[in-house]
Amino acid sequence: MGAKIPILFVFIIMLFALSSAHPSKRKQYTPCKNLVLYFHDIIYNGDNAVNATSSIVAAPQGANLTKLATQFHFGNIAVFDDPITLDNNLHSKTIGRAQGFYIYDTKNTYTSWLGFTFVLNSTYHQGTITFAGADPIMQKSRDISVTGGTGDFFMHRGIATIMTDAFEGEVYFRLRVDIKFFECW
Amino acid sequence: MGAKIPILFVFIIMLFALSSAHPSKRKQYTPCKNLVLYFHDIIYNGDNAVNATSSIVAAPQGANLTKLATQFHFGNIAVFDDPITLDNNLHSKTIGRAQGFYIYDTKNTYTSWLGFTFVLNSTYHQGTITFAGADPIMQKSRDISVTGGTGDFFMHRGIATIMTDAFEGEVYFRLRVDIKFFECW
Amino acid sequence: MGAKIPILFVFIIMLFALSSAHPSKRKQYTPCKNLVLYFHDIIYNGDNAVNATSSIVAAPQGANLTKLATQFHFGNIAVFDDPITLDNNLHSKTIGRAQGFYIYDTKNTYTSWLGFTFVLNSTYHQGTITFAGADPIMQKSRDISVTGGTGDFFMHRGIATIMTDAFEGEVYFRLRVDIKFFECW
Repeated sequence: MGAKIPILFVFIIMLFALSSAHPSKRKQYTPCKNLVLYFHDIIYNGDNAVNATSSIVAAPQGANLTKLATQFHFGNIAVFDDPITLDNNLHSKTIGRAQGFYIYDTKNTYTSWLGFTFVLNSTYHQGTITFAGADPIMQKSRDISVTGGTGDFFMHRGIATIMTDAFEGEVYFRLRVDIKFFECW
Repeated sequence: MGAKIPILFVFIIMLFALSSAHPSKRKQYTPCKNLVLYFHDIIYNGDNAVNATSSIVAAPQGANLTKLATQFHFGNIAVFDDPITLDNNLHSKTIGRAQGFYIYDTKNTYTSWLGFTFVLNSTYHQGTITFAGADPIMQKSRDISVTGGTGDFFMHRGIATIMTDAFEGEVYFRLRVDIKFFECW
Repeated sequence: MGAKIPILFVFIIMLFALSSAHPSKRKQYTPCKNLVLYFHDIIYNGDNAVNATSSIVAAPQGANLTKLATQFHFGNIAVFDDPITLDNNLHSKTIGRAQGFYIYDTKNTYTSWLGFTFVLNSTYHQGTITFAGADPIMQKSRDISVTGGTGDFFMHRGIATIMTDAFEGEVYFRLRVDIKFFECW
């Protein structure tokens, strides 16, 4: 009998191991999936219609649609369809598009609110990742939420850490997006 | 003693069965809940104020608010309050309203970004379902994310497969929305 | 032997206790975290530039940006950066900012659609909470979705019950937001 109980324990341990391996969603503080991507935004300023990837479409009273508003751009909404690349080169191969909008929403500093989707279409990734959140632009790195995904990112959730990788006048900026999924399916 | 160990096993198995039945959220690749609904969008064009259910409220430089912008409508934002029906007939009984906005966000094809909520109020369903994501309109079917719910859809998450069920000029369109919840509570 | 089996049971029970304590995300119908906060919105009307915390940035045809549109404000988009307080006093210490936008989206009653983030920065809370959903303003209380969080609210999800705590003409309103998290990490 003394020999049989250890076998039982092994069986119990095995059941627990199976039990914890079974959930397809893994909850843990190290990401279950990680992607670092860049996207590039060229704002329409009245002269760059061919290259522009985003456009101001709403502005507060007194402002226009070819120049960001004076008070830290407060009240501007821009719509974008920006190329996504694997590195920080605007001319690298595009692996998808970042589509959505940003709002400048503060009067005394540069802050925006982001609602957008990465539409990925490459040999590596097929699917979408949707983001939402506040972006306090002047901070070196800031976190927004990954609220959903489809395709390869079916039902995923997570956090994206954004850094401004380049900022050239009021025409071009490039964001580095470190996407950390903590719910994978 | 030999008879007692099987009883112990049965007890362990029962505990596991209870354990796996307990979580109210079910994670599985077949939906835990499924709804197919239609919604109907009639865009205000300057002449149809009585029937219109949506309105262009933002446009890029040079465009106006009664006609969708020329470059694949890039830069238009429309706000909507559209009737939801169980079938594809605009005149069927309304079971709720689809409320939110869409953005046309690409210059070289028809693509939109959607942020909206189904507010359901019928004998069948009471509650809200919130959606977000990119909608590449020209594809026959495309997936967006269900990012949250309230009421009957408390804490639900999932995927919605959208199909353009009708498209009449630039005045009326109807979307079929196949909502598949993979997290139910 | 009769003495050994109870020990085994105790061991099994302990394993189950550990197992159910282990998941950091708790799924339950009583919130795993609860916060009640207020935010204050002062809409720019052409005369209150210094105090205004929000601004109309989009309007339907025929409307302007210093007065909410006539038909239940249908078609207005407002961008805001509103102070958050622990109580209902506009002059209480600010513990963060509510940043984002609201859309008036119905022609026959007051209804809005909200997309915004609480950016909390106090000794009590550091982090962001992102909200989305339909807000049928005329109802005493209504639920929207909490779609994500960062910092102290890393990966949180839940429901927020909103009540209009004050409404003064078309210049000031105050919302009471009862945030109930049902997924905490």
